[in-house]
Amino acid sequence: MENEKYKISIIGTGNVATHLALELANSGHNLVNIFGRTEIKAKQLSEKVNSSFTSEISNIPKDVDLIIVSITDNAIESVIRNVNFGNTLIVHTSGSVAMDIFEKSSENFGVFYPLQTFSKNKEVDFKYIPICVEANNNKNIHLLFELGKSISNDVRKINSEQRKIIHLAAVFACNFTNHLYSIADEILESNGIPFDILRPLIKETSNKIDNNKPAEVQTGPASRGDSEIIQKHLGQLQNKPEFREIYDLLSRNILQKHKKND
Amino acid sequence: MENEKYKISIIGTGNVATHLALELANSGHNLVNIFGRTEIKAKQLSEKVNSSFTSEISNIPKDVDLIIVSITDNAIESVIRNVNFGNTLIVHTSGSVAMDIFEKSSENFGVFYPLQTFSKNKEVDFKYIPICVEANNNKNIHLLFELGKSISNDVRKINSEQRKIIHLAAVFACNFTNHLYSIADEILESNGIPFDILRPLIKETSNKIDNNKPAEVQTGPASRGDSEIIQKHLGQLQNKPEFREIYDLLSRNILQKHKKND
Repeated sequence: MENEKYKISIIGTGNVATHLALELANSGHNLVNIFGRTEIKAKQLSEKVNSSFTSEISNIPKDVDLIIVSITDNAIESVIRNVNFGNTLIVHTSGSVAMDIFEKSSENFGVFYPLQTFSKNKEVDFKYIPICVEANNNKNIHLLFELGKSISNDVRKINSEQRKIIHLAAVFACNFTNHLYSIADEILESNGIPFDILRPLIKETSNKIDNNKPAEVQTGPASRGDSEIIQKHLGQLQNKPEFREIYDLLSRNILQKHKKND
Repeated sequence: MENEKYKISIIGTGNVATHLALELANSGHNLVNIFGRTEIKAKQLSEKVNSSFTSEISNIPKDVDLIIVSITDNAIESVIRNVNFGNTLIVHTSGSVAMDIFEKSSENFGVFYPLQTFSKNKEVDFKYIPICVEANNNKNIHLLFELGKSISNDVRKINSEQRKIIHLAAVFACNFTNHLYSIADEILESNGIPFDILRPLIKETSNKIDNNKPAEVQTGPASRGDSEIIQKHLGQLQNKPEFREIYDLLSRNILQKHKKND
């Protein structure tokens, strides 16, 4: 069965807004308008998705099926504050903002949260991105499910409480993980060793949990209780007190956890 | 050109020893003997690689091209202490042990360190594993290079100092990363949300650094300087003081780093 095609306006021009707008346009939806506080950015994105654009929020066309607000969390309130969207369904794409932020702006509102990390110039395959949807009534949930299914195989009904928990877990699994990669990069670089030597290890670390609980495939000095190596590593980090602190805290946490299992 | 085939004895029966022995046997090398302190384990592995086995270290055949010691770092010294390997090349597979640990045991020694995380029941493709080799003379380095090239496309000459740095970086990029996955798992599980929702995000996080420096693709509340979300997340972790401490430390470290770049 052919998916329903929707008329959509987008508020935002950042990474998530850009990736999402392009994907929705490619999936046959009708991108009506792009709003951006910086007009040139709105213009650039609008050209890619064949829509109009505006930098004046009150000019956003409201005769659409839905408006997607995809901007920094703490900007949402101020951007929509003085606009009445009437009956138009309005959703945001944030992991950590409750959906009732829209209560005063429209009678139809919800959340369309793609659980993924989006970067400039890096394409992602939406098919495998879990889309977490929530809305103020079943009709709106249905629409968001249909929209989600048009771009992904994994659409889930997730309420605001659950979404906050997922977002918190994602900070550990993605943002903090990437920061550990960059610490590793810095350690290698300052010793003239190219970072590419770690890439196969990083890949395997993420592959290994495809069919295992992470705790069950934990390896390394701390999980073996090898305090001699831990002390040596702390010694190597003498001149990098902030890395040393991270090494120490994470090792103690791993030791503690795996001691219980021995 | 056909690779040279070597006669090899293995000391050890753990994850690294097992994966390496199987790979070497599959690549046509002649696995002569497996030593394991637990006889049954030595027997089991020896059956898979069609070799003899022993649990008595002095019985290890020394008329081989090389002996690979693949056991826990702090067991190496005690296992080899009373054995004289004569001229036989002896190497270990450890990231953090210097090669001169073999000085008293043989006149030919080195290191054959596959930079990867090995888990039970999880096959890995050796072709993409960087093999770090080091030896006490050029002839031995040459042999280890040849051996490495028979199983991997990425063999590198790495000295003991560099290897220690690589191992330290690997703890951040692999062991600590996996621990963050397991924290995310615990946060989700205690709220009844299945961990699989994070898998695409974890994959993309590791894919995204294929062509980027990790610091350049850092995302999340801390890199945006979004202290409101950070405070909310710390609040959510009120009952998990050890996760809260990790969240706080890593966020402060990211904030500090990315402030500099603003």
